[in-house]
Amino acid sequence: MILRPTNVVGEASLIQGYLAPLSGGYFGAFGLKDDAALVTPPPGHSLVITMDAIASGVHFFPDDEPADIGWKALAVNVSDLVAKGASPHAYLMSLAFPQPPTQAWMSGFVAGLAEAQAAFGLQLIGGDTDRRPGPVCITITAMGLVATGSMCQRTTARVGDIIFVSGTVGDSALGLKVRGHSTDAKSWGLDDVQRAHLVGRYLRPRPPIGIGAGLVRYASAAMDISDGLIKDLGRMVAASGVGATICVDKIPLSAAALVVMRLEPKARDIILAGGDDYEVLGTIAQTDWDAFVATVANAGVSVTRLGTIVSGGGVRVVDGEGGDILVNLDGYDHF
Amino acid sequence: MILRPTNVVGEASLIQGYLAPLSGGYFGAFGLKDDAALVTPPPGHSLVITMDAIASGVHFFPDDEPADIGWKALAVNVSDLVAKGASPHAYLMSLAFPQPPTQAWMSGFVAGLAEAQAAFGLQLIGGDTDRRPGPVCITITAMGLVATGSMCQRTTARVGDIIFVSGTVGDSALGLKVRGHSTDAKSWGLDDVQRAHLVGRYLRPRPPIGIGAGLVRYASAAMDISDGLIKDLGRMVAASGVGATICVDKIPLSAAALVVMRLEPKARDIILAGGDDYEVLGTIAQTDWDAFVATVANAGVSVTRLGTIVSGGGVRVVDGEGGDILVNLDGYDHF
Repeated sequence: MILRPTNVVGEASLIQGYLAPLSGGYFGAFGLKDDAALVTPPPGHSLVITMDAIASGVHFFPDDEPADIGWKALAVNVSDLVAKGASPHAYLMSLAFPQPPTQAWMSGFVAGLAEAQAAFGLQLIGGDTDRRPGPVCITITAMGLVATGSMCQRTTARVGDIIFVSGTVGDSALGLKVRGHSTDAKSWGLDDVQRAHLVGRYLRPRPPIGIGAGLVRYASAAMDISDGLIKDLGRMVAASGVGATICVDKIPLSAAALVVMRLEPKARDIILAGGDDYEVLGTIAQTDWDAFVATVANAGVSVTRLGTIVSGGGVRVVDGEGGDILVNLDGYDHF
Repeated sequence: MILRPTNVVGEASLIQGYLAPLSGGYFGAFGLKDDAALVTPPPGHSLVITMDAIASGVHFFPDDEPADIGWKALAVNVSDLVAKGASPHAYLMSLAFPQPPTQAWMSGFVAGLAEAQAAFGLQLIGGDTDRRPGPVCITITAMGLVATGSMCQRTTARVGDIIFVSGTVGDSALGLKVRGHSTDAKSWGLDDVQRAHLVGRYLRPRPPIGIGAGLVRYASAAMDISDGLIKDLGRMVAASGVGATICVDKIPLSAAALVVMRLEPKARDIILAGGDDYEVLGTIAQTDWDAFVATVANAGVSVTRLGTIVSGGGVRVVDGEGGDILVNLDGYDHF
């Protein structure tokens, strides 16, 4: 006997059967039964709003677990909110399918969204669904709250500031390389746990949700890194009219990434130029550094000093002896 | 000599060369140079937020004028805001192209968005751009302002209320039928001006932007009609736990639609079940009707009484003598 997968039939069952539970008790979501959502920021607060899409075959693989796809769709948006110092609050989602998804796929997708909602602290409040040709595509608009006037911008880095990054860099790009290729993982000397760590960082990015209070209080500029450390740092300094010098030896690496560095000559370029880190890159005045590190450590977030903002422009990468390092900058361009 | 069209090259030139001017002087758009936008509603106000996508080959034709596509992408979102009683304020836009657009296409698209921005009173404040397979797709998240507590909902129609619609119904669905088919238009008895009126309503929907104050003050429920009058009315009464009786002779028609009604037997079904009207459908207590009509007339909006909310459920359509009319309900389902 062959069991055929059962598809979700109709927009109403997709919304009320699968998506409405994600709106929980959020008043302004109206159980996803209205045409629009309602958000009322508390007095003295502003909304930080970001919009990012992920598409099958471009940002994720068609055979990725639907729960991982749901998690990632939300996490890449939350990453922008976190890097601005905002507390995630609510999101809208536009879903496009070339054909109706199976019930199993939708259940998994919604489960991954629910996990991400719980981890990051926000709820679904609206959106739309469409059938159209092309890849499965999930477009999310996420909103976070900040005290008015306290959003961290990317254009405000100042000469002399310390450049920092949260967590570790490069795991996701390395994870993408070994996703589904256990042979490559072995040639890199990775055991199963290390490989799973790297792949997990690609499939389920975890923006450092606790960093907000420290950013708002101390950061002179901040952004998330999604297109590669060097490329995104280049954008920050260009937008701020300054330059950066960072030391490659200071870049924080996971145990698994350190293993790859020993055996794979291209590992450093992958780590510096690869994407999907979803960590926070920012700048802090020298005098605020110790207080910033202590504040974010209290919230469970580690940050590492990479280098210094300098006058001029561009990103200079040096080794431990101060010698220049050329980086192969093939970071992802969205367009 | 053949002049080749020149494509837009790179995400940075797409954003800074074409889109950034649409952000005007909106402070929280940061010139589209940051990762997120910032919105601070005035004290006592809430944000009404909606999200709708349009895709080539589904919601518009690949050879539609790019200016019309830009207008429509924004107008279908503004329609939801207007029907909730909100003043359009700002929007984010996610653009997906399978290949880089030509400079001419982008210039036209941006010009159409700029016209719609000026007509509806909102600005671009953020979004993202992607290259991916599949049709050109424009996903917009639009935000409007309402005094807190005054958003019109769709679930709150009450037995005895008058059912109204703004403007005229069916023009857009008829316009879709004669788009590019001038022969059909002639067989329907339409002159060039009438045909252009109908096609124009399809290409450039104009939500009744002046209706907001009247809705907020008097409407017991409201929504926009985008998927067909009868289908959307059915959704409103289902969500409100009531029924509706409307008279088909009361449905407001344009001069062009009246011409088609004389010669095309299917015209009535097209008008009742066709989509893309982007007018407001709502309910008003009997005692408030005259004041509502006067208020919206002052703002340049005409509204027409279609019938009455009744107990029970479903939508009953009757003719001038009270006889039941069966409607062929093939209104658009998004999914």
